[in-house]
Amino acid sequence: MKTLQVDLGPRSYPISIGSSLLGRTELFSPHVTGRQVMIVTNPTVSSLYLKRLRPALANYTVQVHEFPDGEEYKTLEQLLPLFDQLLTAQFERRCTLIALGGGVVGDMTGFAAACYQRGVPFIQVPTTLLAQVDSSVGGKTGVNHPRGKNMIGAFYQPQAVIIDTDTLQTLDDRQFSAGLAEVVKYGLIRDAPFFDWLETQASALMKRDPGALSIAIARSCEIKADVVAQDEREGGLRAILNLGHTFGHAVETAMGYGTVLHGEAVAIGTVLAARMSLQLGGVTPQDLDRLLILFQRMNLPTQLPSQLTADTLLSLMQLDKKVEQGQIRLVLLKQLGEAMISNDYPADLLSQILTVSL
Amino acid sequence: MKTLQVDLGPRSYPISIGSSLLGRTELFSPHVTGRQVMIVTNPTVSSLYLKRLRPALANYTVQVHEFPDGEEYKTLEQLLPLFDQLLTAQFERRCTLIALGGGVVGDMTGFAAACYQRGVPFIQVPTTLLAQVDSSVGGKTGVNHPRGKNMIGAFYQPQAVIIDTDTLQTLDDRQFSAGLAEVVKYGLIRDAPFFDWLETQASALMKRDPGALSIAIARSCEIKADVVAQDEREGGLRAILNLGHTFGHAVETAMGYGTVLHGEAVAIGTVLAARMSLQLGGVTPQDLDRLLILFQRMNLPTQLPSQLTADTLLSLMQLDKKVEQGQIRLVLLKQLGEAMISNDYPADLLSQILTVSL
Repeated sequence: MKTLQVDLGPRSYPISIGSSLLGRTELFSPHVTGRQVMIVTNPTVSSLYLKRLRPALANYTVQVHEFPDGEEYKTLEQLLPLFDQLLTAQFERRCTLIALGGGVVGDMTGFAAACYQRGVPFIQVPTTLLAQVDSSVGGKTGVNHPRGKNMIGAFYQPQAVIIDTDTLQTLDDRQFSAGLAEVVKYGLIRDAPFFDWLETQASALMKRDPGALSIAIARSCEIKADVVAQDEREGGLRAILNLGHTFGHAVETAMGYGTVLHGEAVAIGTVLAARMSLQLGGVTPQDLDRLLILFQRMNLPTQLPSQLTADTLLSLMQLDKKVEQGQIRLVLLKQLGEAMISNDYPADLLSQILTVSL
Repeated sequence: MKTLQVDLGPRSYPISIGSSLLGRTELFSPHVTGRQVMIVTNPTVSSLYLKRLRPALANYTVQVHEFPDGEEYKTLEQLLPLFDQLLTAQFERRCTLIALGGGVVGDMTGFAAACYQRGVPFIQVPTTLLAQVDSSVGGKTGVNHPRGKNMIGAFYQPQAVIIDTDTLQTLDDRQFSAGLAEVVKYGLIRDAPFFDWLETQASALMKRDPGALSIAIARSCEIKADVVAQDEREGGLRAILNLGHTFGHAVETAMGYGTVLHGEAVAIGTVLAARMSLQLGGVTPQDLDRLLILFQRMNLPTQLPSQLTADTLLSLMQLDKKVEQGQIRLVLLKQLGEAMISNDYPADLLSQILTVSL
């Protein structure tokens, strides 16, 4: 088992990464406040992993709440039944919520924990690759709005993140690949040698080799924890974690939540960001080729869905949280392994890139 | 004009109290972030005061959103149209929400500001006495749930609180009296001489004498700011501000939101807390009489509505946020002018007090 620390002063917390962690009481107990525990999950994850988690919580009064499975249910309305159950069961301020599932479960549970009685503790137990390397770490919680992704939410840190890598063995192929898009992102924005390593390990990762997976997850979490520790509330640096996301969110919103997976949209968006960076002299044509090949080996899409239009995407990007004074701030690559945030690019380059990519 | 400061380190902010403040640009500008301002209000307040506020914001792009008027609309569902409007108008992270209205508008707007894009700045412009002396200061925001008051919310501080005492001249009598209940509370929990002063000034206050009102509001805000500065997230001391509230919330929930005003329920609850304190030797029979007479002069109720039962109230109190390990923590009076928090009282005293008060 590997343990990392997210350093945020009084809000610091550990990330544990390893095999067979779900049932281990000693990983959970130090982070559970009070006697009441609400495990929040979805039907798919529940049927696979609830039984493994239960022994770790044998000493608590445990209830289970299931959200419907899928990004299209990541809404404010879906939180209401959870609040109902918490109040009906008389859950006190000294209770703990445990998010057992992927990014949707984690984001929604975290936001519910931020709001219930103005804030109760919660623990992230991510079961998808995407949640393990990205959404469970860093305290971004929230729900979608028909007009934009994650538009309603809170910065709210968990008490601990417990990553049982065994859960990846049952993850469906599409979801697994979607998670790899975020892993590749960390190499691109912050660690060129990690990108090189991912190229050499692409086959092993696609075969879900436990050793390769553990290394990839740990390095991803390490980079994320380091960035978040420097800029918890996204005043500056943290925005680099959104490489491909401004494009990606627009694709997700335009296609309808749940049609394109978040990681797939990020892969498409990352390619667009790389194409823009190429035009601006940030990466080489060879870098772009390496990225396209790596994503293809990971079964990730690299092209915009052809039914979209550049105008639709542009107007959705205008709505993104990264817009300031009407100008879309983009995460671009200074070089492979180094990101930069820019709103200083030719005005027509963005729509040109979108148009030629369709 | 009087200015107080709420000392919360990086989250510190000023409270301005005085006459004709609504239109004064220089009070607002230093606290407005970005160019986009959403004034959130309700139809009643809007028709009275929106015109006076507008000149202060002449240099900004201003939109107005109205919540329906009344505590029964303080729900999560009612926030959705506000989020819709913010997103439709492409409000960015660098925008400012201004809460113009009473406690319901302030609590809902503050919570919306806490959640929109994971947090945008907001300014409190309270127009009821209750909001001016209590809910606009201290950063408690949220909405009700059918099973409990303020059960969904956030601790989220405003950028400034601007109290224009002129707005009290149009407040309806019942709302005005309800606000006085919270003013009396500050004397009871923290300042016996202020309680004495309130007795001498009760007639002047009921006539809405501007001088007496300004003093009462400033002293109330001062006490609240002092307590909040010592304990922002209610780890301990801050709970004394809830004198009468655990009883009061149960009364409000049992009667249905909007039937009994919050301040009226607090008055009833404060009398119950005083009766318990009397049994426990905390206050004298004379103190209780003084309180009953003062509330009566202020046209405040001092008796539980007779249609309630002790069992209903007890089970609702069990749901309150102040419950720990099943035991109801109550704010009681050690003496007139000093509060204490206690869960150490004879088990049957609480139900006995409720029963005899019905």
